[in-house]
Amino acid sequence: MEFGYTGNILRVDLSKEDISIENPDDIFYRRYLGGEGFVAYFLLKELKKGIDPFSQENKLIFATGPLTGCPIPGSGRNCVGAKSPLTAGFGEADVGGYWGAELKHAGFDAIIIEGKAKNPVYLWVHDSEIEIKDANHIWGKNTGDTQNIIKQELNDDFIRVAKIGPGGENLVRYACIINDLRNAAGRTGMGAVMGSKNLKAITIRGHNKPKIAAKEKIREILKANATNMKNLASAFTFGTGGELMEYFSTTGNLPTRNFRDGEFSKALAIDPKTIHDTIGLGKDSCYACSIRCKKVVQIDSPWNVDPIYGGPEYETIAAFGSNCGIDDINAICKAGEICNKYSLDTISTGISIGFAMECYEKGILTEKETNGIRLNFGNAEAMLQMLELIGKREGLGKVLGEGVKRAAERIGNGADKYAIHVKGQEIPMHEPRLKQGLGLGYAVSPTGAEHMANLHDTYITTKERVLGFAPLGILEPLPLDDLGPKKVRALIYVSNWKVLENSLIMCFFNAFSPETEKDFLNIVTGWNTSTWELMKLGERITNMARVFNIREGLTKDDDWLPERFFQPTTSGALSNTAINPDKFEKARYTYYRMMGWDDNGIPTKAKLEELDIEWASKMLP
Amino acid sequence: MEFGYTGNILRVDLSKEDISIENPDDIFYRRYLGGEGFVAYFLLKELKKGIDPFSQENKLIFATGPLTGCPIPGSGRNCVGAKSPLTAGFGEADVGGYWGAELKHAGFDAIIIEGKAKNPVYLWVHDSEIEIKDANHIWGKNTGDTQNIIKQELNDDFIRVAKIGPGGENLVRYACIINDLRNAAGRTGMGAVMGSKNLKAITIRGHNKPKIAAKEKIREILKANATNMKNLASAFTFGTGGELMEYFSTTGNLPTRNFRDGEFSKALAIDPKTIHDTIGLGKDSCYACSIRCKKVVQIDSPWNVDPIYGGPEYETIAAFGSNCGIDDINAICKAGEICNKYSLDTISTGISIGFAMECYEKGILTEKETNGIRLNFGNAEAMLQMLELIGKREGLGKVLGEGVKRAAERIGNGADKYAIHVKGQEIPMHEPRLKQGLGLGYAVSPTGAEHMANLHDTYITTKERVLGFAPLGILEPLPLDDLGPKKVRALIYVSNWKVLENSLIMCFFNAFSPETEKDFLNIVTGWNTSTWELMKLGERITNMARVFNIREGLTKDDDWLPERFFQPTTSGALSNTAINPDKFEKARYTYYRMMGWDDNGIPTKAKLEELDIEWASKMLP
Repeated sequence: MEFGYTGNILRVDLSKEDISIENPDDIFYRRYLGGEGFVAYFLLKELKKGIDPFSQENKLIFATGPLTGCPIPGSGRNCVGAKSPLTAGFGEADVGGYWGAELKHAGFDAIIIEGKAKNPVYLWVHDSEIEIKDANHIWGKNTGDTQNIIKQELNDDFIRVAKIGPGGENLVRYACIINDLRNAAGRTGMGAVMGSKNLKAITIRGHNKPKIAAKEKIREILKANATNMKNLASAFTFGTGGELMEYFSTTGNLPTRNFRDGEFSKALAIDPKTIHDTIGLGKDSCYACSIRCKKVVQIDSPWNVDPIYGGPEYETIAAFGSNCGIDDINAICKAGEICNKYSLDTISTGISIGFAMECYEKGILTEKETNGIRLNFGNAEAMLQMLELIGKREGLGKVLGEGVKRAAERIGNGADKYAIHVKGQEIPMHEPRLKQGLGLGYAVSPTGAEHMANLHDTYITTKERVLGFAPLGILEPLPLDDLGPKKVRALIYVSNWKVLENSLIMCFFNAFSPETEKDFLNIVTGWNTSTWELMKLGERITNMARVFNIREGLTKDDDWLPERFFQPTTSGALSNTAINPDKFEKARYTYYRMMGWDDNGIPTKAKLEELDIEWASKMLP
Repeated sequence: MEFGYTGNILRVDLSKEDISIENPDDIFYRRYLGGEGFVAYFLLKELKKGIDPFSQENKLIFATGPLTGCPIPGSGRNCVGAKSPLTAGFGEADVGGYWGAELKHAGFDAIIIEGKAKNPVYLWVHDSEIEIKDANHIWGKNTGDTQNIIKQELNDDFIRVAKIGPGGENLVRYACIINDLRNAAGRTGMGAVMGSKNLKAITIRGHNKPKIAAKEKIREILKANATNMKNLASAFTFGTGGELMEYFSTTGNLPTRNFRDGEFSKALAIDPKTIHDTIGLGKDSCYACSIRCKKVVQIDSPWNVDPIYGGPEYETIAAFGSNCGIDDINAICKAGEICNKYSLDTISTGISIGFAMECYEKGILTEKETNGIRLNFGNAEAMLQMLELIGKREGLGKVLGEGVKRAAERIGNGADKYAIHVKGQEIPMHEPRLKQGLGLGYAVSPTGAEHMANLHDTYITTKERVLGFAPLGILEPLPLDDLGPKKVRALIYVSNWKVLENSLIMCFFNAFSPETEKDFLNIVTGWNTSTWELMKLGERITNMARVFNIREGLTKDDDWLPERFFQPTTSGALSNTAINPDKFEKARYTYYRMMGWDDNGIPTKAKLEELDIEWASKMLP
């Protein structure tokens, strides 16, 4: 116990109805930390190679980190992981709200769900008591009704519920898990894995705040960062994307009509400030956080949008808005609400519909396949109808619920040209032709197209901005379209830190420097850790995820972007700009070699040994 | 100036008598820092490939770091670098005392000496005034007389003088540079390079304390570390090696008779505590340091030893003591004094004499070659005579002054079997058969056998001790004789930090954690650096030194230990223990690959790019 920090991990086998608690040693905690670190560890250690993500053999891991549930803004998160039904590789999603903190307060760092329940169940964790409870009566319900019924049933309004709606039950491959009703563990289809296990919800009530080695110091740090906090809150006055939509459209960053076009003339109509000024009800936050980045909207007509489901993030607005050619902010908000009700990832859903729209306009899909829906870009009503079909897996929604990669394969006729994904995961709302380092990040991310860890491109374009990244080793500004070695190392360094943040867990929208996050960790654990140790931890996790993917058969060929991005947009700022495939391939090679991987992107034994995970090299084929 | 910290570098061309001052930009400072970082940068950037170390084209670099001259214990040091006449590769030595601080107070971070003076000169730097002064009248003088004459001449008793004695003038390949009279930039023959340039001394007087961004915080940190400081001072009650000699002998760590034997029965007689109790005059310290680790001795007979030259470190005691089979502490102290007078590295000198003794006992050298000296192990008088001959380059001293590698080549008759060196540099007083990770460190160090960066083996044998290394990523204790991947990564991580400390500059005998050293750096520079950035800086410098060596023609074959260490000692704890050459070769391979080097130990382009020194890859053959 030299490192003085350990905890409890709950393991629930739904097939055997077996519940157990594990106590890994102090080195385990220091080496894998929590969150994404735990997910990577358990998936790589415990999953058999080649299993069907929907089989009983998949495991669904909910993990918090040392900071979760502490009075630190940005720490109210948890991570969910499993083999992804969307990518058939490393699946992982992070989510805010209050559920993670509640799990920690119940005394657990993580829950590992194994097997499959015979009939629908939900898990009820109240402090040290754990029950597997019948969920037959709530199966088929949307997330809001599910939460209400469970609250009534347990007679406790303060429980926190992570649950799936019909999207997860129906195994939409990009179904998410909804914490409370406003927060989504959105990506890689974790909700579908939950559905495949007949697990409707995990309900938590915890009464014990975590031990913090030097609690009084937290207040000091928060005081010292008060201005940063205020500035950050101010940056989120209108929530994500606020007052940026026109700028994004002008610069070519706003995905428009399935990434085909380069500008969206109605960008202002779908700006978060417009939402704020019309249908906004204010903003919501997560546990212990004063930033309040989360929009809340209410609409009565033409569609009723219930504020209990919050409001749309930038990703949602762009995915259902410009990406579908839609400028009706009400329709967009409704789409967001439906996704939260059905537990669908808004990015993948929006891209799936945009894909169908382009196929429809190209004549690859006709009204025969769309059940008579005229699926043109810009048709808001059609978008909402299609969304319902996806959630219910009816009509064309059956195939679109497979994700664009599989849908394109089924549809044929060249539809794959319009399937905007990496490794089967649909691409988020940031333009890789503009931010080419982000593009490389999309290509090599273990979870398929992933934006959260790869947004640094935007933030290192001036020397003034670089200052904040200097502690990570980035000393010079780099242009957005740069794909040279300096950009590649910036991607590696920043994304390693982001993976670390997903293990702490700390929100990416936090007001703290890497050093301050490290200080928080020491304060909570009593460790003497350093930014070096933490960066190496991030790198360790990235390598474990990579080894997992290689074991599952993913190759170098999966580290690539859709053909569309090697062509210019039809209009706008990027109408003469495309990614150069030779440069991109060279950057990918540089990435592999800088990571200490071989020419095929396979981690070397020496790299895994250097990261103190020699055992992981034995997992390679 | 975003990083807000720069300084002045003085360049002196002795051939052209040209003096100039350079002001590198803020990124240069943040990327290369100072000390060994500057040395590695200028040697790699500016030296032509393949030059003779004694030619005018070699450059001699004196460099301080951001911490030098600040009121921080352990910061009173400077680094000296050049192409080494001993190894024909990367030459670098670090030294304590007051000279480095004085240089900083004169306003300079570094001095680059180029060319060769026509006649002997010394440099006189008084604040911004720089003069090249005649030194004909002091050429040939020992260091003490040199210092006295210069002080009188400049009429200033507070000047600080870095100088050479006859050893440096006579191009003894392991001649050192003596700061004040007690501190040696000992290794890799920097004093010989100084001699080859006809530069007798660099004399400094500075009146301006360096700017410190947040000076008040230094006091806070020192207060918080008061107990550490006290404990460290206590550990040095008798100076280096205090009360350890018998323990070292028992465990096999005390080099005895040219590393041939495994125990030294008279270890107690040469223990620093014995010195303290008999001839000790107390202890001395460096600028701003309260640790007082440096012995001072005074002897009247049988040899007069002047306390102005301080006293012997552990390395000196073992090199002239057990390593030469000598138990006469007076003779050992005299040897140390002569080395400081002549400016000779005590390790290389002691090993050279031990080598000659073994050759003599084997009949490879006879009294014909030794000028009648009966050079048996244990003959203290003979050892001192031989030492004088080396300093004067007379008789056998001519060849021994070339270092054991070249001496063995000249002597022939199998003498090379007894030449205990790596890359031409003689091995320090720590037994690689006992500490096998240290052995690997000896083999791969860019300067040849080097102990300071590689002593971690000793300190990570228990989990309790490992705690201090956890911030560097070492979480588990490892046995001394381990050569597995965990030991290799420990070597890499710890030595990267040590190289960083040589750039800060911070003494290895400091009371601070890596995080605290990082805090000091931020306090002084106003930066927001992290341990990550600093570890990467250490790695960057190690790679630059490696590239330098490869350019100079050193290969994998030079990363190897003398045959002796693959055999057990003749007696003592290691009489059944030797390094297994297969395991050692495997560990070396692991080291290369973990470093991001190829199978031949050549840094890959991707590794150099990842370290933000793409330019260095162009220096590779």
